[in-house]
Amino acid sequence: MKEFLNDNFLLDNEVSVELYHNHAKKMPIFDYHCHLSPKEIAEDKRYKNITELWLGGDHYKWRAMRSNGIDEKYITGDATDYEKFKAWTSTVPYCIGNPLYHWSHLELKRYFGIDSIISPETTDEIWEKANAMLQEDGFTAREFLKKSNVKVLATTDDAIDSLEYHKMIREDESFDIKVLPALRPDKGINIERNTFLPWVEALGEVAGVEIKSYKDFIKALELRVDFFHEEGCRVSDHGIDDIFFMLATDEEVDGIFKKAMKGEELSPEEVEKYKTKTLVNLGRMYAERGWAMQLHIGALRNNNSLMFNKLGPDSGFDSIQDQHIAKKVSALLDELNKESKLPKTILYNLNAADNDILGTMIGNFQGDGIPGKMQFGSGWWFHDQKDGMIKQMTSLANLGLLRRFVGMVTDSRSFLSYIRHEYFRRILCNLIGTWVANGEAPYDMDLLGSMVEEICYYNALEYFGIEV
Amino acid sequence: MKEFLNDNFLLDNEVSVELYHNHAKKMPIFDYHCHLSPKEIAEDKRYKNITELWLGGDHYKWRAMRSNGIDEKYITGDATDYEKFKAWTSTVPYCIGNPLYHWSHLELKRYFGIDSIISPETTDEIWEKANAMLQEDGFTAREFLKKSNVKVLATTDDAIDSLEYHKMIREDESFDIKVLPALRPDKGINIERNTFLPWVEALGEVAGVEIKSYKDFIKALELRVDFFHEEGCRVSDHGIDDIFFMLATDEEVDGIFKKAMKGEELSPEEVEKYKTKTLVNLGRMYAERGWAMQLHIGALRNNNSLMFNKLGPDSGFDSIQDQHIAKKVSALLDELNKESKLPKTILYNLNAADNDILGTMIGNFQGDGIPGKMQFGSGWWFHDQKDGMIKQMTSLANLGLLRRFVGMVTDSRSFLSYIRHEYFRRILCNLIGTWVANGEAPYDMDLLGSMVEEICYYNALEYFGIEV
Amino acid sequence: MKEFLNDNFLLDNEVSVELYHNHAKKMPIFDYHCHLSPKEIAEDKRYKNITELWLGGDHYKWRAMRSNGIDEKYITGDATDYEKFKAWTSTVPYCIGNPLYHWSHLELKRYFGIDSIISPETTDEIWEKANAMLQEDGFTAREFLKKSNVKVLATTDDAIDSLEYHKMIREDESFDIKVLPALRPDKGINIERNTFLPWVEALGEVAGVEIKSYKDFIKALELRVDFFHEEGCRVSDHGIDDIFFMLATDEEVDGIFKKAMKGEELSPEEVEKYKTKTLVNLGRMYAERGWAMQLHIGALRNNNSLMFNKLGPDSGFDSIQDQHIAKKVSALLDELNKESKLPKTILYNLNAADNDILGTMIGNFQGDGIPGKMQFGSGWWFHDQKDGMIKQMTSLANLGLLRRFVGMVTDSRSFLSYIRHEYFRRILCNLIGTWVANGEAPYDMDLLGSMVEEICYYNALEYFGIEV
Repeated sequence: MKEFLNDNFLLDNEVSVELYHNHAKKMPIFDYHCHLSPKEIAEDKRYKNITELWLGGDHYKWRAMRSNGIDEKYITGDATDYEKFKAWTSTVPYCIGNPLYHWSHLELKRYFGIDSIISPETTDEIWEKANAMLQEDGFTAREFLKKSNVKVLATTDDAIDSLEYHKMIREDESFDIKVLPALRPDKGINIERNTFLPWVEALGEVAGVEIKSYKDFIKALELRVDFFHEEGCRVSDHGIDDIFFMLATDEEVDGIFKKAMKGEELSPEEVEKYKTKTLVNLGRMYAERGWAMQLHIGALRNNNSLMFNKLGPDSGFDSIQDQHIAKKVSALLDELNKESKLPKTILYNLNAADNDILGTMIGNFQGDGIPGKMQFGSGWWFHDQKDGMIKQMTSLANLGLLRRFVGMVTDSRSFLSYIRHEYFRRILCNLIGTWVANGEAPYDMDLLGSMVEEICYYNALEYFGIEV
Repeated sequence: MKEFLNDNFLLDNEVSVELYHNHAKKMPIFDYHCHLSPKEIAEDKRYKNITELWLGGDHYKWRAMRSNGIDEKYITGDATDYEKFKAWTSTVPYCIGNPLYHWSHLELKRYFGIDSIISPETTDEIWEKANAMLQEDGFTAREFLKKSNVKVLATTDDAIDSLEYHKMIREDESFDIKVLPALRPDKGINIERNTFLPWVEALGEVAGVEIKSYKDFIKALELRVDFFHEEGCRVSDHGIDDIFFMLATDEEVDGIFKKAMKGEELSPEEVEKYKTKTLVNLGRMYAERGWAMQLHIGALRNNNSLMFNKLGPDSGFDSIQDQHIAKKVSALLDELNKESKLPKTILYNLNAADNDILGTMIGNFQGDGIPGKMQFGSGWWFHDQKDGMIKQMTSLANLGLLRRFVGMVTDSRSFLSYIRHEYFRRILCNLIGTWVANGEAPYDMDLLGSMVEEICYYNALEYFGIEV
Repeated sequence: MKEFLNDNFLLDNEVSVELYHNHAKKMPIFDYHCHLSPKEIAEDKRYKNITELWLGGDHYKWRAMRSNGIDEKYITGDATDYEKFKAWTSTVPYCIGNPLYHWSHLELKRYFGIDSIISPETTDEIWEKANAMLQEDGFTAREFLKKSNVKVLATTDDAIDSLEYHKMIREDESFDIKVLPALRPDKGINIERNTFLPWVEALGEVAGVEIKSYKDFIKALELRVDFFHEEGCRVSDHGIDDIFFMLATDEEVDGIFKKAMKGEELSPEEVEKYKTKTLVNLGRMYAERGWAMQLHIGALRNNNSLMFNKLGPDSGFDSIQDQHIAKKVSALLDELNKESKLPKTILYNLNAADNDILGTMIGNFQGDGIPGKMQFGSGWWFHDQKDGMIKQMTSLANLGLLRRFVGMVTDSRSFLSYIRHEYFRRILCNLIGTWVANGEAPYDMDLLGSMVEEICYYNALEYFGIEV
């Protein structure tokens, strides 16, 4: 029996242990997709207590508390921070088997040196110890990043963002972690939502373009892509809840765009045509600048309208969509590839039943002399856990080249989430180590050590073309 | 190498063994969903031979025999009981790897003390031994329940059922197992089938309501819900082969109902609108009474029309449907939740590719201070086996709170099926024990023993609010 | 730690080892579905070098090289054979975790006695050794088959094929491996493609029928079925990329057929009706002759139109389709079964998320006294790897009778692919052996040894009714 969270946590054999401790653990982190606040990095935020740091915007934990029968008052309501903390620590013993159980203990252990099993009994001890430390040196936003050995990270930024904090960070010579922006133009693609018109207006302003036609709109978008590029951006991100693909002429889409600008209702087909054309236009811009394009496919959001009306989006009421994706994803990639304008692309899916679809889809569009040009992205959101990662990596290994994988992202709003890279690396090393232990891969530590280091760090570095 | 079906069957490490023998095994059974005959319990049925008891209505075994090339004569035809028994025992050696292999041996071992490996060679020995015992004391319907340590069970009963046998059982002071009804109103929801009109007529009679409008129909239904409630019912059950969701006004649905009452053909949209409205109306009634609602989603029934014409439904010609369920299930639950009338709900799916959909869906609607208000139900039907259970529990653990799971149901017509609870418990204990052995959960037997006991028994007791 | 590819490769316990070495390994091979060239067998082809033999038409390897960033010149382009070989050996170290890593090493080891780990460093050594051997005795097409202990194989042949090479092989008394044809009438079913009209014309010629109506067409098809039957064919094969089922009258389909013959555009409904009717007609013919029908469901082909225009089909640009299959597959089988004309059928799926659908679907139509009449086929294409096979066999075992499984096929164009039978057999033995080691199956080597031998060889022999 192994001690809980011991040094060889998740490492089942000697080769796995060797791969993790001699290779994976030593690698810096390139977190090419997260939702950290550049403002908090720029200002080197300090947290008033563990509740703010740990439970502030963490809808994973909120969901767990709701599942445990905790009243909303203690989750997003007006209870005190201590009460909220206690609501969480009383829920943790019910989380056995859930990644939150590992994450929470690892976060306390790695950043605060706290080894206690979280429970109602240890609540006060943890509360006091962690809060005290948060007032000391070494427990600010930047310090968490440094402790985590982060070398580069890419935040997720609205295409109309000023990127002022990125600039501040870059110009601060006392801080040498690269914090790059990633372009997220979703509000300009989701033409059917009420966020569209104000966004187009704001886009016109920041881009300095009077947007009267679809052509103007695309021109303004391209100016933003250029602006982001200058600020060091090399990757975009797209939330594709429902996959779309429907071709249309430029004229048709111009008509649709103008209709929307007048506030008229669009048909589902018009929406689909607009989105297709716009993503294809963006993809072309990315390809021309050597960017990578991330597509996050298949979330089903805001299912609980009662709570949505109270708390808004991203509050823990999202789940997984089922839809047919193969033909549309294929057509979308082919449309760009036809004219040799398919950028490097990372496909993420929220429905793990589609893993093999994407695992084989990327194989259709590899090429251009770029190793792993098309990527099947790391286990996303609900699949960011042991089984989800094993499934994603096994699928990728069976259907493509695991060794060309650009690896893990935190996709998180929390500065403590870097333990997820540790978690991923242990699982990766165990996967490969187990093959060796079983005689399914040769015991060649040069080969396998390189493989691990590449997946942990070097592949991403090369893929995104970042100099460090 | 472990001996077949030994004491530590399915238990791979010491913690698993400890969890099973010291905790799981000692728990009584609350079987909140089965298809046992209340009549057979009331009358304490005695079986003429092992064929009647074992092969009588067991379409799992029938399917296996057909797959083995056995002529239908020996399955549902006019062969003698001995011949049928022999047909089955000659099939068992072909069932290695199928849950039937484990179930059959466990059933003989636990209830009859027979340890023989089932095969053509052991046919006569088993036939004679089991049949002799069936004539002794201790081998009737009630005795099987007692031997299984069943404390509470809920049968599945048509909403128009008189529940007379439930009353007889309740009033029999010599028998202290709680046998509760569960309301199944499917025939009143499946408006497109030829069972609908006779059912509405019968409903009117038992409810004492003259049903001329949809309003009358709902009134009659609610009277039945009240009647079931008085008889101790706290749970409903719905077979949702094709998921539906389409809103309509009361007037529209009244029109659809009247059209059906006149025997007119309905459009698919009309059927879908009627079903949606009716399930929502029922859900509201359940919520108001504190019931739980069970939805069994995704069976594809009666695929073989040749055999359906000979044997009717539930004869072993059913399989798994694939359809998009996420959006409709979400909308259905949201519709009730909007008005704070969503009852406790257990979602079962027959397509295991949808496990994660339901595992995340329940998280959208948790709340009301009820721990595990929304449940992802135990591996159903074809997934009631080791791999199916592991997948369901792993999915639930990763995406929600396994410790709040209300656990196993037999879903069976047979009094011998209680070994499936043993089977489930061993798998549960092994899952948790393996986490401990691997250092993925702390070795805290108070914590883990409680967790096991809750999932085996206490969670269901609390969830359904039954006093024992 | 086990040595890479050692004798007990993939065998994790003593029972597995015993089952493999004493049973599986000794069985001859009946490869009832492959794409070997009958011409190459008839002419006993000799290969000019390892590149021709190994990389010639192997789109699995091509995909891997493209994923590795290799320029197309070194894959299908005009590079030298040595350069292409080197491109492949430099890719192999990136294939760890992919079945190609195992296949490639096993192929060198079993057929050439080469034990080296493939890498840039060992390129020249392997190139020289293998090429030298290819000039020796024992390294021709027929010799590879003999070394592999193949007893019977079925190629895949267009329904209009002359089968001249099959005749040559049969008449050659110096060669005693049975090489049977399998009928593939896809071009006559895919009425919407531009291959249809020329194919119908060719069919008319080889069948000696003037095809003016759908009835003529079916008559000509049946003559081909008869011709294939005389040549020893007992199995057909169908690529069903998009599943279809829509009923129509004979008159309707005759109209559709004539429309197509005039070169007119067909509606999707017309295409679906034509295909349904034609497959049902063929199924009836197969049933009447005791053939088995293979349906390969769910490929999404030729996704990359740029490369399709350069290289044509089957060049490594295919992936997995997602679609609803349950209702249509059920209806198709039922349509034939209704009139007792359902042939023995093997269903293969490319989307593994549908494994359980097919695993349960076959149970709906078992019967006629044929053990395992309906088969869920071995892990196909992208699932022809360890995890894919385990999933397919576990699904089959849980939902049907694994022991009645007709087992593995190579589905390959390469004479070296017979190592895939070894790979399959090891995985099969390990699956069963692990059950025994865990106490989940009795340690009865007569029972389990028979089971293994049946799945490896005897079941297929009996199923296809071939005399050897």
